[in-house]
Amino acid sequence: MFIYQKTPQYYETDQMGIIHHSNHVRWFEEARLAYMDALGIGAIIRDTDSGVVCPVLNVQVSYRKMIRLHDKIQIKVYLMQYNGFRYTFYYEICNAETDEICCDGTTALCFMTPENKPVRMKKVFPQLHQVLCDTLENERLPENRTKML
Amino acid sequence: MFIYQKTPQYYETDQMGIIHHSNHVRWFEEARLAYMDALGIGAIIRDTDSGVVCPVLNVQVSYRKMIRLHDKIQIKVYLMQYNGFRYTFYYEICNAETDEICCDGTTALCFMTPENKPVRMKKVFPQLHQVLCDTLENERLPENRTKML
Amino acid sequence: MFIYQKTPQYYETDQMGIIHHSNHVRWFEEARLAYMDALGIGAIIRDTDSGVVCPVLNVQVSYRKMIRLHDKIQIKVYLMQYNGFRYTFYYEICNAETDEICCDGTTALCFMTPENKPVRMKKVFPQLHQVLCDTLENERLPENRTKML
Amino acid sequence: MFIYQKTPQYYETDQMGIIHHSNHVRWFEEARLAYMDALGIGAIIRDTDSGVVCPVLNVQVSYRKMIRLHDKIQIKVYLMQYNGFRYTFYYEICNAETDEICCDGTTALCFMTPENKPVRMKKVFPQLHQVLCDTLENERLPENRTKML
Repeated sequence: MFIYQKTPQYYETDQMGIIHHSNHVRWFEEARLAYMDALGIGAIIRDTDSGVVCPVLNVQVSYRKMIRLHDKIQIKVYLMQYNGFRYTFYYEICNAETDEICCDGTTALCFMTPENKPVRMKKVFPQLHQVLCDTLENERLPENRTKML
Repeated sequence: MFIYQKTPQYYETDQMGIIHHSNHVRWFEEARLAYMDALGIGAIIRDTDSGVVCPVLNVQVSYRKMIRLHDKIQIKVYLMQYNGFRYTFYYEICNAETDEICCDGTTALCFMTPENKPVRMKKVFPQLHQVLCDTLENERLPENRTKML
Repeated sequence: MFIYQKTPQYYETDQMGIIHHSNHVRWFEEARLAYMDALGIGAIIRDTDSGVVCPVLNVQVSYRKMIRLHDKIQIKVYLMQYNGFRYTFYYEICNAETDEICCDGTTALCFMTPENKPVRMKKVFPQLHQVLCDTLENERLPENRTKML
Repeated sequence: MFIYQKTPQYYETDQMGIIHHSNHVRWFEEARLAYMDALGIGAIIRDTDSGVVCPVLNVQVSYRKMIRLHDKIQIKVYLMQYNGFRYTFYYEICNAETDEICCDGTTALCFMTPENKPVRMKKVFPQLHQVLCDTLENERLPENRTKML
């Protein structure tokens, strides 16, 4: 599990006076990439010439509490599934002061070549593959999480 | 069912050369609001002094095909559920030339006061309530749609 | 001159209840690309394998009137300068009902290879070059426009 | 002067493989608000019930170097003008490793009531006014900055 600190931004608010719901999807990505950076495997995502792209396959978001511009936010990121090709993260966006969950969700992604062929990570990037396997094994997901598909 | 024509924008692309997945959530909103405008009930959403806000409760998106900047896009919007307070739309983002489904998904929303109290639409906005009831009754959802929660 | 119709979107509003000022820059791009599509030269921008990219060199925006979600908007786009490599557009974002100018601005861009070498359009894309020359010659800029650099 | 650390985000890239130019305007806002937080005066912006809104009057951005997803970025923010009502910030977006300037620009804003009346800060928020006066007096702008309007 990785904890990512996030300051909501003015340009992320909408006329309801809250963070617009599309930004939670962006925050998931932001926290996920910070987690992968922390694991030492972010470069494969960041570099356009890494030979790998990671399209998102599906997203699910459950909004529980509105988030406002002055809220201090923490995003907890968990690796939930990984099968050598496809991987799923689970996220909780929490109020950093009360630890209340404002939003949770999942995103499933996969490793592809820029020409849209699946990348077998174990073969092509064995070290990165091992990091994901080890991370998955040690991950303890919260039990009370929203049931996702 | 409502069909919304969408031209993908340069600022919506990402370094994979495709429309970034967070924009599909924004396109759902864009198409939904166009549908409500077409039904004559969009003003309640657009006007900040309507006495009603419509927070999103959950979002689910299934990405099937990458969308590129030169693609012509159609979004088919269906009202899927409405109980006088909470409402769910189903969306298909299609390639307008091949009619292939690139993405589908749902969003659930509800009617609230700006002070976060539920609004009983039948009582407070009976005309708008009737429009939604009639729309729901006449809606024919596609049978092969992705199973959502 | 080209007129682009724009419907403001909910996700473009901010907690002031107006369209967030960063979106005007995106609308400039949206209107500019629609103009280039109308001139028959949009594909060079839209296609990632056209051999040309068009980085923005500078942007200037003058905000005169706040824009709200229910406003009907027209964007008038003018080609202001073109020297075979670098080109500048001038924009007026107007209320479509009152024709009042809400915002005006300019963006300067240039034609580059993906490897960041200048593209001499007259030589490499003579037809497109001619379209831009002809457009520039026939363009009549509004006289009362905000003085830009 | 305030230095703001920024990690570019995947959702901010475009199909050129660089940070889309509209995000620089958002980063200016992000850095400006962090500066105001550091000065202890950010709450007036963040809270929707502060009685003050701060619309942007104009923006100028000069793009010198493309920014990529793996770049480490620093934004230097300077208060450039303040007259008790209207205020202008100057920004340099720099590569944190080379200190090279990738982009610079200015934004002018003003203090208004939500009903669009100017707020005379000296009278209504004397403490905040003093902070801005003191900050302006001590600010040393870089001499080689792009000439802005």
